[in-house]
Amino acid sequence: MWVTALLLLSFFAGAQNSTRFNIDDATLAQWGKYRPVTLLALQWRPSSESYTYVSGDTLVQVNAKSGAKATLFTLNDLNRVLSEANLRPVRSLAYASWRANQQLSVTSGAKKVVVNVSPLSVEQVISFTDDAAGVDYAPANGLFAYTVSNNLYIQKQDNSSIQVTNDGAEAGIVNGQAVHRSEFGIRKGTFWSPKATYLAFYRMDESMVTNYPLVDVTTRIATLQNTKYPMAGMTSHEVSVGVFNVATGKTVYLKTGEPKEQYLTNIAWAPDEKSVYVAIVNRAQNHMWLNEYDVATGQFVKTLFEETSESYVEPQDAMIFLSTRPNEFIWQSSRSGNKHFYLYNTDGKLVKQLTSGGWDVMQVIGMDAKERTLYYTSTQESPMQRHLYSVDLKSLKVTKLTAEHGTHNPLVNVEKGYFLDVFSSTDVPNCIDLYTLKGKRVKNLLVAENPYAGMDMPEMEMVTLTAKDGETPLYGRIIKPLGYKEGGKHPVIVYVYGGPHLQLVTDTWLGGARLWEYYMAQKGYVMFTVDNRGSYGRGHKFESVIHRQLGVKEMEDQLTGVDYLKSLPFVDQDRIGVHGWSFGGFMTTSLMLKASDTFKVGVAGGPVMDWSLYEVMYGERYMDTPQENPEGYEESNLVKKASLLKGKLMLIHGDVDGTVVMQHSLQFIKECVSNGVPVDFFIYPQHEHNVRGRDRVHLMQKVTDYFDSNL
Amino acid sequence: MWVTALLLLSFFAGAQNSTRFNIDDATLAQWGKYRPVTLLALQWRPSSESYTYVSGDTLVQVNAKSGAKATLFTLNDLNRVLSEANLRPVRSLAYASWRANQQLSVTSGAKKVVVNVSPLSVEQVISFTDDAAGVDYAPANGLFAYTVSNNLYIQKQDNSSIQVTNDGAEAGIVNGQAVHRSEFGIRKGTFWSPKATYLAFYRMDESMVTNYPLVDVTTRIATLQNTKYPMAGMTSHEVSVGVFNVATGKTVYLKTGEPKEQYLTNIAWAPDEKSVYVAIVNRAQNHMWLNEYDVATGQFVKTLFEETSESYVEPQDAMIFLSTRPNEFIWQSSRSGNKHFYLYNTDGKLVKQLTSGGWDVMQVIGMDAKERTLYYTSTQESPMQRHLYSVDLKSLKVTKLTAEHGTHNPLVNVEKGYFLDVFSSTDVPNCIDLYTLKGKRVKNLLVAENPYAGMDMPEMEMVTLTAKDGETPLYGRIIKPLGYKEGGKHPVIVYVYGGPHLQLVTDTWLGGARLWEYYMAQKGYVMFTVDNRGSYGRGHKFESVIHRQLGVKEMEDQLTGVDYLKSLPFVDQDRIGVHGWSFGGFMTTSLMLKASDTFKVGVAGGPVMDWSLYEVMYGERYMDTPQENPEGYEESNLVKKASLLKGKLMLIHGDVDGTVVMQHSLQFIKECVSNGVPVDFFIYPQHEHNVRGRDRVHLMQKVTDYFDSNL
Repeated sequence: MWVTALLLLSFFAGAQNSTRFNIDDATLAQWGKYRPVTLLALQWRPSSESYTYVSGDTLVQVNAKSGAKATLFTLNDLNRVLSEANLRPVRSLAYASWRANQQLSVTSGAKKVVVNVSPLSVEQVISFTDDAAGVDYAPANGLFAYTVSNNLYIQKQDNSSIQVTNDGAEAGIVNGQAVHRSEFGIRKGTFWSPKATYLAFYRMDESMVTNYPLVDVTTRIATLQNTKYPMAGMTSHEVSVGVFNVATGKTVYLKTGEPKEQYLTNIAWAPDEKSVYVAIVNRAQNHMWLNEYDVATGQFVKTLFEETSESYVEPQDAMIFLSTRPNEFIWQSSRSGNKHFYLYNTDGKLVKQLTSGGWDVMQVIGMDAKERTLYYTSTQESPMQRHLYSVDLKSLKVTKLTAEHGTHNPLVNVEKGYFLDVFSSTDVPNCIDLYTLKGKRVKNLLVAENPYAGMDMPEMEMVTLTAKDGETPLYGRIIKPLGYKEGGKHPVIVYVYGGPHLQLVTDTWLGGARLWEYYMAQKGYVMFTVDNRGSYGRGHKFESVIHRQLGVKEMEDQLTGVDYLKSLPFVDQDRIGVHGWSFGGFMTTSLMLKASDTFKVGVAGGPVMDWSLYEVMYGERYMDTPQENPEGYEESNLVKKASLLKGKLMLIHGDVDGTVVMQHSLQFIKECVSNGVPVDFFIYPQHEHNVRGRDRVHLMQKVTDYFDSNL
Repeated sequence: MWVTALLLLSFFAGAQNSTRFNIDDATLAQWGKYRPVTLLALQWRPSSESYTYVSGDTLVQVNAKSGAKATLFTLNDLNRVLSEANLRPVRSLAYASWRANQQLSVTSGAKKVVVNVSPLSVEQVISFTDDAAGVDYAPANGLFAYTVSNNLYIQKQDNSSIQVTNDGAEAGIVNGQAVHRSEFGIRKGTFWSPKATYLAFYRMDESMVTNYPLVDVTTRIATLQNTKYPMAGMTSHEVSVGVFNVATGKTVYLKTGEPKEQYLTNIAWAPDEKSVYVAIVNRAQNHMWLNEYDVATGQFVKTLFEETSESYVEPQDAMIFLSTRPNEFIWQSSRSGNKHFYLYNTDGKLVKQLTSGGWDVMQVIGMDAKERTLYYTSTQESPMQRHLYSVDLKSLKVTKLTAEHGTHNPLVNVEKGYFLDVFSSTDVPNCIDLYTLKGKRVKNLLVAENPYAGMDMPEMEMVTLTAKDGETPLYGRIIKPLGYKEGGKHPVIVYVYGGPHLQLVTDTWLGGARLWEYYMAQKGYVMFTVDNRGSYGRGHKFESVIHRQLGVKEMEDQLTGVDYLKSLPFVDQDRIGVHGWSFGGFMTTSLMLKASDTFKVGVAGGPVMDWSLYEVMYGERYMDTPQENPEGYEESNLVKKASLLKGKLMLIHGDVDGTVVMQHSLQFIKECVSNGVPVDFFIYPQHEHNVRGRDRVHLMQKVTDYFDSNL
């Protein structure tokens, strides 16, 4: 009897709340059960006018022209073939990707398997040792580059391997991996030449860089895990570029010269494989030389051109050579204050600027066969949107190819003249249309239904504010609490990032917000975010106002956001909180200290508290060195300002955070303790710069509780 | 006008609270402005019947027999003499101490100065290098032993020095310092022979012990501060004893044999300087051999006797040789279940047991010239009290020499037959009487007034409970909130330590409580403490019930305390909190996990969470090794039980705690995170096993806030 009553009770409790999110869903379900439906693994089949996607356990192919639909094979079919070759089955077709018109590659256990489509059969099995990383495939001849520990290897099709470097066991030597802490668009450490005759690779010497002692507390005696962490103004690592000749087994290092503390960025191969190009950036990051080096000797050939800036240069895109005119290439530069395309020739002469205007090109999609038209995405329509465009290289005429407002991630088949327009917007969870590259919509493939139908979904609005300079528009997003129209005042939480390379307010589904923000709005909070000057998507001029003075302009714009919030009738001006992570933790703490009458409660995760404790590459770009900019470092040093804290502030840090080291939080706390200032803190043991996975629920519960208890 | 009103307001606010403590005073003033008045630097003048003390800037001497009072000299007098010798002045006479009937020693800057009393003049100036530590004076010939880094030196009267060891620069070698983590009563590393012909010293080899990585976050790049930390069951350090002959400069090492992982405790010199005695304890700590070694050769001579125990042996007191019968010595042992005196001869034969009973001897005071009477303190009256006793070595008649209930710290002048009875009790802040050693009170010297007169001092009561075994009395202390008689229910905080070597409930002023507990009682909390089985002052039998099962009996007794609390009409049974540090942090967390329906809020500082992460010496004494006692380690492992947590628990840790390493808290937190269990945490950066100094106010405010917010 008692048991029954209890069950009924929990049933009703459940029913009552079924239109509200719980903390688990608020944290994790946005990309799980609430993910808008889509066509899984949608891709073009190479050299064809067909696209494929996975439907259940079936690989479906559709001909764009005829509309004919076919089943290529099923998961069972594939696993039977794998089994016959004594290979482990795969769980899903979603990770099968086209490698050629007749070949797909799949991952079976630790092996990569190349599968012929008709008849379905195993073509090749590539085995790596368990500790292989950074596998880089050369389509030209089927070789694989990979690293084990800090040495570089090449695997041949017969699974035999060549060792490219052998100094990786030396202290501080790293071969074949991303360098410069993955700044300057660097995401990998190996670069095959067009015909895969050569492999260019990064070699980094970190032996002169100070160790930062991270500690693993999960072993019975905690163990030291040193990481090389060059702090702003300190001795940094030295990088060089090797070029390995696969046939001779010889490596030539490019003579990139002195000073060795420089950045070797955006490695590109000449189509004829005779030259390697490197965009050299000086340590001060205000000067770039686009240099050509001779592959045979490593000798410097010439500087094609230079770029300089009073703030910083930040080349992030390698040259893109034209096939039909191999002495010409497209270069992407923010030299005008916005990022645009420039056509150069290999003499270093500017042929013509291809795009211009107060917006940024975003991604190169490709060119037609005759290389008369360049396809790309840009922010021309709005900084919050992404559309597909083409530009005619002769007339410079720009054509917009996508229609609906929102963020388009087109899959383009340049060869056959089609694209699949995958997009979402504040109104559209997910939509996929087939277009011709002439801009004609062939048909709609999918419109996802609102995954939150039936939930008490708080109202979201995109707002445009004007910065205190009287002219710069600032884009914001407000999520209004349930029942906000019914009168009464609601507390606000400002969610902030505010640093370069990230944009929070976007014309995408949910407006770019995390579901947690809607959860908080369900609980009665106004959730607000504005992308301040310095943030991503608005171009170099907008971003670089933060140079040498991190926090100043960013805070000014965040306070513009607060002015807006205070104008709203349903906002309780005395209950404004702020939350952010990383640069957003720096912003959160800055606002808590410097606008201490405005913000009552803050939660700062992985916060930068003193830029002199941050690393060289990112830190010096925006702040110069502490020696060069003592005032800027002093003004932005939050440790020294800890005694200004009046509200409730909780810091959160992962104890093995190797990006913003925990020292930032601990120095701030120490200053609070010395000054008798209350402050709160939590550690996520063995987490790095963010709390990922299942543990994130604990984090978001803690953040939620802190606002619930204190705001 | 407005300003005036505000001033008045704060004036009244101040006046209103002037009978209540603030957090600063609650934390720090107990030993500052609220310290009961006393006679500063009270001591007997050697070989005289006079005692001296400091009154203001004057050194006062009183003849115990005649009562004649004299001024010896003033601070000005002393500083004039120091100045004439080009020595820095001293700030106070309080640190001047008698060295002989005509000589005092004072510290002037970094120098030790010996001063003649009449006429007042400088006799000797002893200079050490700035980094000298562990200075050990040999009265017999005026030599000083001291260490610099890890080497041992001897300083002569002409300030020239002899280097005794030279392997201190080797990794892991430590000379002349306390070893075995200062267990077994070890407080220093040098032992002069009676005539200072020899210097015995400890040498410790820690090179085989695992490093524990502590991190100093105050440097711009955090720096590693490794400490040798042998965890239970792991490889431990190896200790030997060297004997340095001052005349020859030769060192002989005692052949203490295998296994090298043993404890060399309680070093004692034979009166004739021909032998050194060491109480050897095996690593298992259940067997002691009192061994004699030949000084000339280091050879083992014989074992005088052995002690074994089913739980553990813990010799903490070196042999005390009789002057009149140099082949006899007093040995202190807990072999009977309580600590008592035994008279042995150097053949290892027990002459007689001197004391016995269900109580412990505490401190040897000395013997009369004919060595017929031994003076000592003990708990014979009550475990919460300390009294001075004598025992007649012939008749074994015990005589109690102090009268009033409380804790007596007598200063005894055995030679002239007097003692100064300095004592406090729950009723008496501080009282000093002059007695003859025959027990006759000569006169009262001082009765301190209640330093809290005029404050709203909460009522304190000592209570006696009975453990669940139905027979063992447990002593507790309750501090009742202001106004508790007026009805209403009050929340309770149990303050707990619970481990060996510490007693919290004592018949001393404030009952042994910290002023913070009275502060909390002023705020409305019932503050309660009970010394459970396993704690100090009740003898080996009472303490050793915890062997191999830390936490079990201790918790049982704490819950007996809770039963008592629940019987009180003014206690709110639903609002019981618990707080403790170190072993008390282990107890706090144990209670929060295993009595989760009883305790609503806990604050655990520097808690042991897993005894396998604690060090060898202390850990294995109580728990054996993890290999020997897997069930005991499993049962007491709080990390694995983190998911049992239901209430609000805050952990606090110093990030350079080298006693209970922060790994304990972090592993517990990690388990909480994995299990989705809310938990709170705070770090005191650069603090060790406790938070000392001014920062302690921040700590106690944080602890207070946590109970205020959650209980």
